[in-house]
Amino acid sequence: MKVYNFSAGPSMLPDEVKLSAQKNFINYEGSGISVTEMSHRSKWYDAIHMEALSSFRELMNVPENYEVLFVQGGASQQFDAVPLNLLQKGRADYIVTGNFSGKAEKSARKYGDIQIAASSKDKNFTYIPEGVTFRDDIDYVHICQNNTIFGTRYTDRTFPVTDATVVADLSSCILSKVVDVNKYGLIYAGAQKNIGPAGLTIVIIRKNLIGKENPLCPTMLSYKTQADANSLYNTPPCFSIYMAMLMFRYLKGLGGVKVIQQINEYKAGLLYDFIDNSSLFTNPVNTLDRSIMNVPFVTGDDELNAKFVKEAEKAGLVSIKGHKLVGGMRASIYNAMPIEGVKALIEFMKKFELENKKCLTFLP
Amino acid sequence: MKVYNFSAGPSMLPDEVKLSAQKNFINYEGSGISVTEMSHRSKWYDAIHMEALSSFRELMNVPENYEVLFVQGGASQQFDAVPLNLLQKGRADYIVTGNFSGKAEKSARKYGDIQIAASSKDKNFTYIPEGVTFRDDIDYVHICQNNTIFGTRYTDRTFPVTDATVVADLSSCILSKVVDVNKYGLIYAGAQKNIGPAGLTIVIIRKNLIGKENPLCPTMLSYKTQADANSLYNTPPCFSIYMAMLMFRYLKGLGGVKVIQQINEYKAGLLYDFIDNSSLFTNPVNTLDRSIMNVPFVTGDDELNAKFVKEAEKAGLVSIKGHKLVGGMRASIYNAMPIEGVKALIEFMKKFELENKKCLTFLP
Repeated sequence: MKVYNFSAGPSMLPDEVKLSAQKNFINYEGSGISVTEMSHRSKWYDAIHMEALSSFRELMNVPENYEVLFVQGGASQQFDAVPLNLLQKGRADYIVTGNFSGKAEKSARKYGDIQIAASSKDKNFTYIPEGVTFRDDIDYVHICQNNTIFGTRYTDRTFPVTDATVVADLSSCILSKVVDVNKYGLIYAGAQKNIGPAGLTIVIIRKNLIGKENPLCPTMLSYKTQADANSLYNTPPCFSIYMAMLMFRYLKGLGGVKVIQQINEYKAGLLYDFIDNSSLFTNPVNTLDRSIMNVPFVTGDDELNAKFVKEAEKAGLVSIKGHKLVGGMRASIYNAMPIEGVKALIEFMKKFELENKKCLTFLP
Repeated sequence: MKVYNFSAGPSMLPDEVKLSAQKNFINYEGSGISVTEMSHRSKWYDAIHMEALSSFRELMNVPENYEVLFVQGGASQQFDAVPLNLLQKGRADYIVTGNFSGKAEKSARKYGDIQIAASSKDKNFTYIPEGVTFRDDIDYVHICQNNTIFGTRYTDRTFPVTDATVVADLSSCILSKVVDVNKYGLIYAGAQKNIGPAGLTIVIIRKNLIGKENPLCPTMLSYKTQADANSLYNTPPCFSIYMAMLMFRYLKGLGGVKVIQQINEYKAGLLYDFIDNSSLFTNPVNTLDRSIMNVPFVTGDDELNAKFVKEAEKAGLVSIKGHKLVGGMRASIYNAMPIEGVKALIEFMKKFELENKKCLTFLP
């Protein structure tokens, strides 16, 4: 049975990427050794590291005045690294649009005068605040560009209008659509959703923001440490970087981010269209703010939701249970989810809706 | 050609471990998905995580009053995490026996009154200081138990005699010999030498040391964060933990740490015996302090060293070049290096010595 993995992260990887990694697992390109046991100072790993960095720059069209860093600890570690490295005036504004932007704001409070400029908590994070104003003399504005749990995302309509540096968590949307890096001072993203296995976090930072860290910033959280060492200050998560490199090759082969964006918009469109025309399933998110990566949906009945999750898994549609903060189901349809996977999900939803029509009479 | 990988880290893994990971790479135990794309909240990953934690506890005989934590960032991140979590009186003593213990001491200086209680820098770190005395009223004494670059290690003779908490970096010797965890307040180790692929760091900490962190300790560096969440606060480095779990299975299958210690002592004994009887190769380390994991050796001639490294690689003995701080060669013979690998190295050294006898006339 073909299995489609709708996990919110770690997430599905393309068959091509997995097969290539498996084939080379014991003997990487004639070296006689595995990438999992390769010195990070060896010529073999060096080629992997350099290709990963340059392919990522190419895919994201990263300007020359930005550094790309490979770090560890996940986005959660960046929640502290960002204020530790960027606070100079000691003030920053956060927009809270979900669980992770809330955690980022809470972590930053330790280091300075942090204010929530706007929040969508009033409607359980089902929208992105528009026309937010910020304080003067702040070091940066922080947003979470795509909210994995709640299925919302920033668009041009909601993107912060400010002279301050914009810092954004792109963990669940990096490489899914074209982004103009120049609009940001700093972008960070955990790799485990759109890029590769967990353990790698990517930071894109404008060079003039590097080297001004808090004197108490831990060495490994300093962007200067990593920039000066080309992300080889200590042993990097080599195998995760290798898998990321394979993913970048795959995306370049497809035609780059422009092409995957079209595919992603098509996939999301299919699923939202079906949900909007369904008499059983609904998506709670403000239409204009809907994520093309994470699609939460509910039946309105907890027992029916549980039945859906159970039967979906039997049908090869795995890890589709929603996050406890939203309930119901969530389909994460990152870059690696093929169109066939989304179609299989829709077919299953259709069938489930028909079979469970009798339940509908109990619904409001 | 059979390749033996003498890399100091990331390092050789047992064939059994690699083959099992390769076989299950695409479809892990019938789940239809790869460990590299598995939700860290899934039942599949949960079983891996729990087995890795419990097997490690069993192998190390970790007492009930200690927590085992899986974290990220390498030992280098612990250089800051240790003082951020443990300094209460604000004072700690460090013994500097090499590059990494020096870095640990330097990082700690940011957070308190740190003193070097002893150092072996006077003889280029070729020995471990004995009978070191410490200040009163310190929070801890920090040592690096095995020095990867210089090839020294602590033994009972040199182990700190103190009432203070002992903190030790075991990155390059963890699971290589039996250790009494009760002698330590905290042990940390990067996984990439004796355990598995880079990206995982293991911390063993006495429970009463948890929860007293500096108010400016980043969330991800707080031991309490990780202890409270069973090392699942955010997405862990799942694939590295999976490979570690396979390595723990392998070690348990061998008979545990007692058995691997005998093998390690035998391997190191073969190599040191050969070096001590060689007319070409020497090991610079004080005999009593010699590491059984990392064996540096030199010919006394830089050109001859370079020739050795080059020809060894052609013969399938890879990553044997010494660290630039010592020069010459270094054979890292961790748990996964088979006895046959050490024998192959000795045979190669014998042959090289014979072939290069003419060079000996130029040596002192």
